Amino acid sequence: MPEMTLKPVDYLFRAAYVLTLDEENRVVAPGAVAVRGDTIVAVGPAPELEAALAPARVLDYPLGLLLPGLINAHTHAAMSLFRGLADDLPLEDWLNSHIFPAERHLDREVVYWGTKLAVAEMLLSGTTCFCDMYLFADAVARAAAETGIRAVVGEVLYDFPSPNYGPPDDGLKFTADLCRAYQGHPRIKVAVQPHAVYTCSPDLLIKRKELADRYDTRWIIHLAETPREVAECQARFGATPVGHLERLGLLQPNTVADHAVVLNEVDLELLAASGAGVVHCPESNMKLASGIAPVTELLARGVPVGLGTDGCASNNNLDLLSELDTAAKLAKVRNLDPTALPARQALGLATRGGAQVLGLEGVVGQLAPGFKADLVVIDLDQPHLTPLYDPYSHLVYAASGGDVQTVMVDGRLLVADRRLLSFEVAETMARARELSRKLKKG
Amino acid sequence: MPEMTLKPVDYLFRAAYVLTLDEENRVVAPGAVAVRGDTIVAVGPAPELEAALAPARVLDYPLGLLLPGLINAHTHAAMSLFRGLADDLPLEDWLNSHIFPAERHLDREVVYWGTKLAVAEMLLSGTTCFCDMYLFADAVARAAAETGIRAVVGEVLYDFPSPNYGPPDDGLKFTADLCRAYQGHPRIKVAVQPHAVYTCSPDLLIKRKELADRYDTRWIIHLAETPREVAECQARFGATPVGHLERLGLLQPNTVADHAVVLNEVDLELLAASGAGVVHCPESNMKLASGIAPVTELLARGVPVGLGTDGCASNNNLDLLSELDTAAKLAKVRNLDPTALPARQALGLATRGGAQVLGLEGVVGQLAPGFKADLVVIDLDQPHLTPLYDPYSHLVYAASGGDVQTVMVDGRLLVADRRLLSFEVAETMARARELSRKLKKG
Repeated sequence: MPEMTLKPVDYLFRAAYVLTLDEENRVVAPGAVAVRGDTIVAVGPAPELEAALAPARVLDYPLGLLLPGLINAHTHAAMSLFRGLADDLPLEDWLNSHIFPAERHLDREVVYWGTKLAVAEMLLSGTTCFCDMYLFADAVARAAAETGIRAVVGEVLYDFPSPNYGPPDDGLKFTADLCRAYQGHPRIKVAVQPHAVYTCSPDLLIKRKELADRYDTRWIIHLAETPREVAECQARFGATPVGHLERLGLLQPNTVADHAVVLNEVDLELLAASGAGVVHCPESNMKLASGIAPVTELLARGVPVGLGTDGCASNNNLDLLSELDTAAKLAKVRNLDPTALPARQALGLATRGGAQVLGLEGVVGQLAPGFKADLVVIDLDQPHLTPLYDPYSHLVYAASGGDVQTVMVDGRLLVADRRLLSFEVAETMARARELSRKLKKG
Repeated sequence: MPEMTLKPVDYLFRAAYVLTLDEENRVVAPGAVAVRGDTIVAVGPAPELEAALAPARVLDYPLGLLLPGLINAHTHAAMSLFRGLADDLPLEDWLNSHIFPAERHLDREVVYWGTKLAVAEMLLSGTTCFCDMYLFADAVARAAAETGIRAVVGEVLYDFPSPNYGPPDDGLKFTADLCRAYQGHPRIKVAVQPHAVYTCSPDLLIKRKELADRYDTRWIIHLAETPREVAECQARFGATPVGHLERLGLLQPNTVADHAVVLNEVDLELLAASGAGVVHCPESNMKLASGIAPVTELLARGVPVGLGTDGCASNNNLDLLSELDTAAKLAKVRNLDPTALPARQALGLATRGGAQVLGLEGVVGQLAPGFKADLVVIDLDQPHLTPLYDPYSHLVYAASGGDVQTVMVDGRLLVADRRLLSFEVAETMARARELSRKLKKG
């Protein structure tokens, strides 16, 4: 075939295994993925793609496993600065004596560097997209935009004055401004993120939902995280948190419930009927002793479920491969059923599931033509990933973030040979160490 | 001070943090550890040791955390070759259709290479000592002896013919021979390892206990791992597995109960009164949906508890740092108490606790003069370990095996700059890949 008929592409990735995470969970082994600009243009057997394409750059991983970039569907990235500041404490003591005092030091600068630190960790461990809820969300958005990662960000909104936007009503304006500022951005989306039913009045929840609808974005809330939250909601509103949202007309397809640990049968049915999504955060729920979310029941009812690490103060890392392992095992022991949440389904949560929950379906979470080029290569040439019978099994039960060797987001190579290319990680760590001295004083 | 008065040592390690894991959990920051021959000769502030010692070699980790080598107190190392062969299946299907058929291919060669593969993974992730129960234990011992790791090995014993030693009674002779062969070995100990109460008759359990007593070694058994085991033991012997051993006079200080998931109040009291040890294997118990061991109740009663990964077919890795994370979080969510099994206590299981359970108290598990020089350095200069407020927190909740940069066992450097020094890991992986093709056919 004469060379001039070959279609030019920017990158051709070749790997021992390509996990597409498409609807059929197709695996191509060995396989290849071609990228032009920010988009995947072809996925298939390596010889086929090589015969048809003229890549500017070929990246070859004969002992590599290529999969879609992982999606961390719920975190508070800048809390990376609080990792290990306080652990193993009763919830009230932890919050009131440690986390809240440290958070009094927050400003744009702290949140910006804390987010960059978290982005470094996420990229190096294979996360290409995260959904963030925190203060000074403009600083989160800026850090995400600069570092090359994909993000859904949102200012945390509640019924008391915020160190960022001031009085509660100004949170609406702040969020609306942020939505407008990032409209059309290739990687950053803004969502509306009221904190919880116990920190937001029904009136403000409704106003905030209107804002999400107006900007066609997600409305994301911590929901039914602890038995205490549910009991208090019952006492105050005569309904479970899920029931409370339903009555207010807030349980809709653009609603995302983070945690969703304490659910009864009616809650499960309401969630399923609504089209709302859920983000499962097993490690945080374990560490804070909140309980175990009924993830298999949610999935059985067709509820879209993503996977999140939550913030570093309650995890304490942002490693989604480890989180997958925990999620799959925790479901088994909760249900006393070794077939619960098998590896393939678990990996779906951190890819397709996250995309669906965050409104990024058809954009990321799969390797298929037309999807954005967000992808990750795992180095299989290591004792703990040898031999390989089933790539899903290794990803979920044996691999961890340190096994990631290459990461691309939106067609741009951000990690190669386990090194960050898009920003200076040493500077970020140095700033984090400086800031930690201030935060520790409380 | 004139140089001639300085005491010569082989190695001086300097690190930002030295976690001694001694009885007071002393942390020296920055600290140093001096090694002569196979033994730790000094631990303390770096300037003090430097003023008194003349080291042949100085290893400096200004952003490193030095701790005792981790102890994997229960595994089946050669099952590394079955990692990912079958997961997410009902227990009987998993065993009868996958694991047992694959195990029919076992011989000395397979077990030797499988163990070497596991040792590579263990050393690279900070484990310096493991306790193994498997077939062809002589091949396990040989692999451990050659690779430089420390091990307690034992042939799995049961009441049916073994592919290794043949008829049940010959298991006693095989184990006795192995005990004699390794008597006086600096790193390898042999223990007596009957499989379980459902695979060993009372008569043979007693004979095997006599053997352990004669050779002054541990008597190690899978015990109370699943509700089914307990129900069957009740039906057959009219006692729980713990009660059954107690009646037979087998619950003694040199007894080790692996798993100990399903325990009632009487079992807990019997274990505590006996001085027997327990090995907690949380990830395996989760993955096989066995249940959650009452580790906080055992610790509260003073039962010695070590931490184990179990084999790679039910985990699927040998990473003790990740296992620590799971252990600490699982205890919290089981008890619905965020203060359960705090980081410091959890790390104790994988060091001091393991040593106590395996009869290596005073030998390994702490950094103190007179202990064997088994130690590990963690590289803190990474985003997910920055900033650092509490080294225990980072080790348990944020680090994983990939963060290990240096490993010494018995005074010999086995890992440096994340590379294995003591044997050829590429050859081991190549052999494992070859063998896996045979094992897969079943």
